[in-house]
Amino acid sequence: MRLADLDEEAVLARLLPVLLHDEAPGVPVGPGDDAAVVEAPSGSVVATTDSMVLGVDWRDDWSSPQDVGHKLVVQNVADVAAMGARPTGLLLALSADPDTPVDWVLGLAEGVAAAAHESATPVLGGDLSGAAAGSVVLAMTVLGDLGGRAPVRRSGARVGDVVAVCGTLGRSGAGLRLYLDAELAAAADREAPEAAHRLRSSHRRPHCPWQSGAEAARAGASAMLDVSDGLVRDAGRLARASGVSVDLDGDALRAETHGDLLDVLGADAALREVLGGGEEHALLACFAGASRLPTTGAPWRVVGRVVERSGAPVLLDGVPHEVAGWDHFAG
Amino acid sequence: MRLADLDEEAVLARLLPVLLHDEAPGVPVGPGDDAAVVEAPSGSVVATTDSMVLGVDWRDDWSSPQDVGHKLVVQNVADVAAMGARPTGLLLALSADPDTPVDWVLGLAEGVAAAAHESATPVLGGDLSGAAAGSVVLAMTVLGDLGGRAPVRRSGARVGDVVAVCGTLGRSGAGLRLYLDAELAAAADREAPEAAHRLRSSHRRPHCPWQSGAEAARAGASAMLDVSDGLVRDAGRLARASGVSVDLDGDALRAETHGDLLDVLGADAALREVLGGGEEHALLACFAGASRLPTTGAPWRVVGRVVERSGAPVLLDGVPHEVAGWDHFAG
Repeated sequence: MRLADLDEEAVLARLLPVLLHDEAPGVPVGPGDDAAVVEAPSGSVVATTDSMVLGVDWRDDWSSPQDVGHKLVVQNVADVAAMGARPTGLLLALSADPDTPVDWVLGLAEGVAAAAHESATPVLGGDLSGAAAGSVVLAMTVLGDLGGRAPVRRSGARVGDVVAVCGTLGRSGAGLRLYLDAELAAAADREAPEAAHRLRSSHRRPHCPWQSGAEAARAGASAMLDVSDGLVRDAGRLARASGVSVDLDGDALRAETHGDLLDVLGADAALREVLGGGEEHALLACFAGASRLPTTGAPWRVVGRVVERSGAPVLLDGVPHEVAGWDHFAG
Repeated sequence: MRLADLDEEAVLARLLPVLLHDEAPGVPVGPGDDAAVVEAPSGSVVATTDSMVLGVDWRDDWSSPQDVGHKLVVQNVADVAAMGARPTGLLLALSADPDTPVDWVLGLAEGVAAAAHESATPVLGGDLSGAAAGSVVLAMTVLGDLGGRAPVRRSGARVGDVVAVCGTLGRSGAGLRLYLDAELAAAADREAPEAAHRLRSSHRRPHCPWQSGAEAARAGASAMLDVSDGLVRDAGRLARASGVSVDLDGDALRAETHGDLLDVLGADAALREVLGGGEEHALLACFAGASRLPTTGAPWRVVGRVVERSGAPVLLDGVPHEVAGWDHFAG
């Protein structure tokens, strides 16, 4: 059955039970009215929006609809967490070719609901729309609450701060390489099949330690963002916004390769993914000293330090470092 | 020049100056970080999301990019106003075929910025993404603040209430008819060219008296929504949500046809557009009596009353009334 075989109300009648929980604390008005109402106990609200597009951000032969829904939530929740906030609600706009199978949309809703549940983020509302042949576009907005704390911006890093990460690095990028490089994949599936499986899974369903965002804020993080386009690229953004440079520690980053990355890619390629792999959604933050890292929740590891602004925003063991980035239009 | 000819940062460098005002009161963190922060002085936030899709919601041969941006803001702001809130910020996700002209995107941003300025809604952030060939999808989220009042839901109408509208009816629908019906358009352009021009313009750039939403809430409106899919269909939603029926007053609705609608369509077709025309974004609300209508701002007119639930959710002069609705997938 395709979307075109049902009217909008019939589609919603199937979708909403998947997306909504009976209990949505902090949501005085949920979906079904002109707009939702969600509590903003701090008197301010954090808001971010991020999209996924079929053929650009996922391929149906790699990712199940559940994977897609999961990833969409995680990448938006990561942006809220990276301000030091906890997520309070999400809205989803789905525009789809009317030939899209209803089961695909229900699978997407299952993935959204599962990831929303994991991050304690109620579904507030959404929009359903037809789209051109072959087109499926998902746009999500996630709101968050700062719990009375100041937002942790990209621009607050100070010379002398340590730079630390929470969550994994390079795993999503390594998984993407396994999808793109048949020769690499064949070797990995022969020699380290379980590691290869886990890396592919990390690409389809990245993980953000979202609770660690608020923990970093409470611990006094001076600057934070989430690693969405690769450690070097995102550290560069933080460095430019703060008017500093970030000097990454090669030994610390090589330690991040241990396990699946090293087993599947070997040392050099594993380090390249740790430095450049995107869509990971680890948190990258600066603290006044190593003793200031949060000690509860997911572990934070020091991977560098903030130094005076030099020629390059990012150094590796004191040497300017650049990686090619990802561009949505120029590819 | 097309999007594909620029990298993402170069596109943003052109877009952001169009979208952002120097002064954005109530926005501690604007675009450029992982997420924005906007004040929510009431301790809660109203949130809605609505999309527009090329070929479904607009045609480039009818609508300029400025028109599209304007309409996208208005339809989202109307949903916030219909809860009795004032808009506090918006986020825009744009997914576009890389062959989309950069000038089209800048025109869109101009329309968004102008309509955002008219409704005092700062731009909080957005997302830019590539999309399939021929596909342009816009998803907007608008946030709002209730000023300490309870939200005005669809479900609060009480038997004996008057039903009133603020803003115009049928004009956007009439404009759409002029675009679709060449014979009608030729006659109108001959006999009432200025009226026809204004109706087409109302379709491309609908108007919502957004400030009247909060005024209705202050005046004690028991239920409210905005007319997005036609008066009868939307009144039916309000009636069903409230467990009542709405009896519309034919004489009052005929009075709504006076002027351009009557001049272009004649009496019968004009009344049909008043009853069924969508994308108008007038506000429809219920009040305990005609003396309770807001007396400041855009005028409210009584167009019916709330009666005991009967066989049909909407009556016209006591007789059950239905109009065909619009469906996003089945067409």
